[in-house]
Amino acid sequence: MASFLNRQIVVAARPEGNAKLSDFDVVEREVPALSAGDVLCRNLLISIDPYQRNLMGNAASELPPIALGQPMSGPTVAVVEQSNHPDFAAGDHVVAWSGWQLYGMSDGSDLRKIDPNVAALSTALSVLGHTGFTAWLGITKFMDAKPGTTLVVTAAAGAVGSLAAQLAKLRGMRVVGIAGGQDKVRYLKETLGLDDAVDYKAPDFAEQLSRALPQGLDALLDNVGGRLFEALMPHFNLRAQVVIAGLISQYAQTGNVPGPNRLPELLTLFLYRFINIQSFAMPDHVGDYAQFLDEMTPLVTQGKIRYNEEFVEGFDGIPTAFMRLFDQNNANRGKLIARLN
Amino acid sequence: MASFLNRQIVVAARPEGNAKLSDFDVVEREVPALSAGDVLCRNLLISIDPYQRNLMGNAASELPPIALGQPMSGPTVAVVEQSNHPDFAAGDHVVAWSGWQLYGMSDGSDLRKIDPNVAALSTALSVLGHTGFTAWLGITKFMDAKPGTTLVVTAAAGAVGSLAAQLAKLRGMRVVGIAGGQDKVRYLKETLGLDDAVDYKAPDFAEQLSRALPQGLDALLDNVGGRLFEALMPHFNLRAQVVIAGLISQYAQTGNVPGPNRLPELLTLFLYRFINIQSFAMPDHVGDYAQFLDEMTPLVTQGKIRYNEEFVEGFDGIPTAFMRLFDQNNANRGKLIARLN
Repeated sequence: MASFLNRQIVVAARPEGNAKLSDFDVVEREVPALSAGDVLCRNLLISIDPYQRNLMGNAASELPPIALGQPMSGPTVAVVEQSNHPDFAAGDHVVAWSGWQLYGMSDGSDLRKIDPNVAALSTALSVLGHTGFTAWLGITKFMDAKPGTTLVVTAAAGAVGSLAAQLAKLRGMRVVGIAGGQDKVRYLKETLGLDDAVDYKAPDFAEQLSRALPQGLDALLDNVGGRLFEALMPHFNLRAQVVIAGLISQYAQTGNVPGPNRLPELLTLFLYRFINIQSFAMPDHVGDYAQFLDEMTPLVTQGKIRYNEEFVEGFDGIPTAFMRLFDQNNANRGKLIARLN
Repeated sequence: MASFLNRQIVVAARPEGNAKLSDFDVVEREVPALSAGDVLCRNLLISIDPYQRNLMGNAASELPPIALGQPMSGPTVAVVEQSNHPDFAAGDHVVAWSGWQLYGMSDGSDLRKIDPNVAALSTALSVLGHTGFTAWLGITKFMDAKPGTTLVVTAAAGAVGSLAAQLAKLRGMRVVGIAGGQDKVRYLKETLGLDDAVDYKAPDFAEQLSRALPQGLDALLDNVGGRLFEALMPHFNLRAQVVIAGLISQYAQTGNVPGPNRLPELLTLFLYRFINIQSFAMPDHVGDYAQFLDEMTPLVTQGKIRYNEEFVEGFDGIPTAFMRLFDQNNANRGKLIARLN
């Protein structure tokens, strides 16, 4: 039986603020022999996501961080290399929760078979994967997406935001996207067809926002948090519904944030405008996954929804690509995926 | 037909911060003759409530303030003096939305008849009125009041807080009250029988709070907001349910609040602990009023719930009594009601 040399990108140190290259290490380890029930997967595509900063420690998250020396966790698309499991055979394509490594060993419980003939394998990490599911849940299960009401999406050119914005358009909402830079704003208006888009980096951002929201906002799908959320607060309408899908501006944040303190103002919005703020844990909604695929798969195969994927070629470039997600000057757009050879 | 000289306490100026005596004025006005359908009510009992600060302008509220020179609005208990309305006769007792004046004219739509033989008239402004209804709605309709789970009530010796705390005890919750001063803390533990109580004025408040909440809190009924809310945030459990019934610490607040900025931290609690924060508009829940009275009336008549009423004798003392609600050194406890002669 052939032996396999695994290669893993591990958490080497707890970052101060955003992650740096020295917070990662690459280690090689022999893949152990398969036990009964085991499936050995070789990763083809590896997901790179902002929330993974949370798993490195010194972060806003309350999840226990990954132990130092262990590989970053997260979803991948893999091919089964060897199987001692009745449900999986060598050559099957699967989505796995394998993380940043060449090979993953699984007992099968985290594996979901996918058919490469229905859609490109990469979509299982983007529009038909956890990214699309997050966007779909937010729009479908956590707000009344009433036609004609106004939704704001932050990081609207990003992986989750761009899908949420398009799903809301399909439901007849008026959608205003917020993104950084004129290129992204143009993309949101001209390519995705949003009703309006605002550049949060523009010096007159506040005025642009007021012009884009003459009737306020009825719903917000937020991927950012922090100052951007605060700029939106005065625009919340009566009974505004806020879904927090991510807080990229806050992941690396620890310790005190300088004032003014905007929390009292937010409390008055609950009391006087009856707003609602929610988030969700994806594992609580696995029961909705089939409904998600039923709606989303034809949108993808018929080209009715645009999704962007940005590929990193090769394994060792993952940390650098990851760090770019937190760089406000990056031109990154869409779901970031490492493609292995 | 006798003529009636009305006396009104009007809003004379927009307060800076808490209201002062000079922000009120007393004016006398002749009561006009009744038109068809009119009911003339003579107020017997007048409600004095913290939220009325909001109606004076320069406040956190978004409700339009009362016009200068017009009387403060709010609920009263009155006796019908003259009636051109088929549903009301002279001598009937009613709850009215008449405000701070001796006489109120109504078209009947805001009047609800009450029977003085069922419970003391004053209860229609306290435990069986809007105060009790607020407490009951919070506990009954906006949280899962599961036996054994921990509820924190702020301003727990106050009119709404003391009723909410007792209702939660009746439902089997573990209830921790927060109030200012040792007398109130003793009252909460010994008289109301709460599981624990904490003095927010104590120098070791934070430690007392941690000791009272060894398992965190599952629900919060907040009447205060501001710094007290912020002190409670770290104790929110997974899926904690927060009901904002009032924000007394914030009513007089305008302009910036000094940092640190606690809003980003609150956003992470939505994302990582799936907390829920809600408030409600009483008019949306008039349909629940009968259910409220069905539960609450026997509790009152059988002495199973304690309610405190503090009476101000006479009309002209209302502004001074109102200002005392915002004085952190006041010994006020329970519902404040002016009794007219």
